[in-house]
Amino acid sequence: MMTTATAKQTINLAQARDLMARYALALDDGQLEQWPSFFTERCTYRVQSRQNYIKNMPLSIVFCSGHAMMYDRVESVLKANVYEPHQYRHVLSESVVEKADGTAMWLRTSFICVRTMLDGTMLLYAAGEYYDEVVSENGQPRFSSRNVVIESSRVDTLLATPL
Amino acid sequence: MMTTATAKQTINLAQARDLMARYALALDDGQLEQWPSFFTERCTYRVQSRQNYIKNMPLSIVFCSGHAMMYDRVESVLKANVYEPHQYRHVLSESVVEKADGTAMWLRTSFICVRTMLDGTMLLYAAGEYYDEVVSENGQPRFSSRNVVIESSRVDTLLATPL
Amino acid sequence: MMTTATAKQTINLAQARDLMARYALALDDGQLEQWPSFFTERCTYRVQSRQNYIKNMPLSIVFCSGHAMMYDRVESVLKANVYEPHQYRHVLSESVVEKADGTAMWLRTSFICVRTMLDGTMLLYAAGEYYDEVVSENGQPRFSSRNVVIESSRVDTLLATPL
Repeated sequence: MMTTATAKQTINLAQARDLMARYALALDDGQLEQWPSFFTERCTYRVQSRQNYIKNMPLSIVFCSGHAMMYDRVESVLKANVYEPHQYRHVLSESVVEKADGTAMWLRTSFICVRTMLDGTMLLYAAGEYYDEVVSENGQPRFSSRNVVIESSRVDTLLATPL
Repeated sequence: MMTTATAKQTINLAQARDLMARYALALDDGQLEQWPSFFTERCTYRVQSRQNYIKNMPLSIVFCSGHAMMYDRVESVLKANVYEPHQYRHVLSESVVEKADGTAMWLRTSFICVRTMLDGTMLLYAAGEYYDEVVSENGQPRFSSRNVVIESSRVDTLLATPL
Repeated sequence: MMTTATAKQTINLAQARDLMARYALALDDGQLEQWPSFFTERCTYRVQSRQNYIKNMPLSIVFCSGHAMMYDRVESVLKANVYEPHQYRHVLSESVVEKADGTAMWLRTSFICVRTMLDGTMLLYAAGEYYDEVVSENGQPRFSSRNVVIESSRVDTLLATPL
């Protein structure tokens, strides 16, 4: 997934955590157009149910490969949601480093996402786990791969903003 | 917001995170009288709805400026809640450092707060974000400003314990 | 709680946090048989209501002392739950170090645990706090004591998987 250029840059846990925190805040701020910038140009983003993940089935709820495909998704979500009627809030748990070779890190991070409607109603919107591959590109941490494995089925598969 | 004395002391992310974690535990422990001690003598504490925050409107749900005003609030909350019928639990996500100049840090931190009633009923009580300015005072990290921006409307504005 | 051997090994906050994160993932993965391996051979594990904890009452919802007793519990839970109908997700807040002497750390960590049923229904399953004593055993961080103090009463005391 990494280009030769990025493979030579080092990455550490603090940088990976910072990337995750900024990613979550950008989404909760509704800055959807920033979303692809958290990824390397060549990348994969996937939202998958836990059941499919465990069975190692390739079926995804959402799948994007590369920036162009991500910008397409941003555009269609923004068009569909002219008026955003709710607010998301991601809370991340501590990350577990599965593997690290100095220039890439593979991490697992549990999260929940709470949705608040305009009338103040709050609900658990999603719970699950990020399976990430993080690299450094031009000195900045980026996801080369982010696989969002969710337990909940409350995600509207067509219009949903990224998790 | 900082005095000349505090401006000369350094502060780092680990210290700021420790301050936030201790603050949350003190509130969840019901140690309301400790609350002002997490702030510098000259400080601001604010609870604000996300809508007002985004519109840059000064209207706050709660506003305190300085220790004296905070102790007043503690006293009125303690008087009103002779018997505390529920338990709060704050969970903080990873912080994003917006700015840092060595002697002060500006951070954003998502959080959720869950409330459990005596009968065991649990509900999402608040979700939102801390916008903090953290400095070091006499070698101890302190909030010189804490702005709690919440999405939920379940906060009882008059009697609520701090978030 | 510590043996002479473990007492000579150092432990730091990053190691303790890593232990907590791996513990939570193992449980959320349903890898119940791994559960005792997160503890030292001589250890205590306890689940306690907040009310009993505050009153300093020894009554526990769950109590295990040592690996043998923990493996017994794993076996009975696995037998009872032939088919696991739900998925747990723990999210941990930042830890507060209460005490540390270089070879042992005492920490408090707030958490919530969300449960998702097969039909997608999500609920707040537990909220509470870990009171941990963490040591290093053969170079690996381990709990010598983990006291789970919970607010919620939704825990099925006989069949519940560990928290």
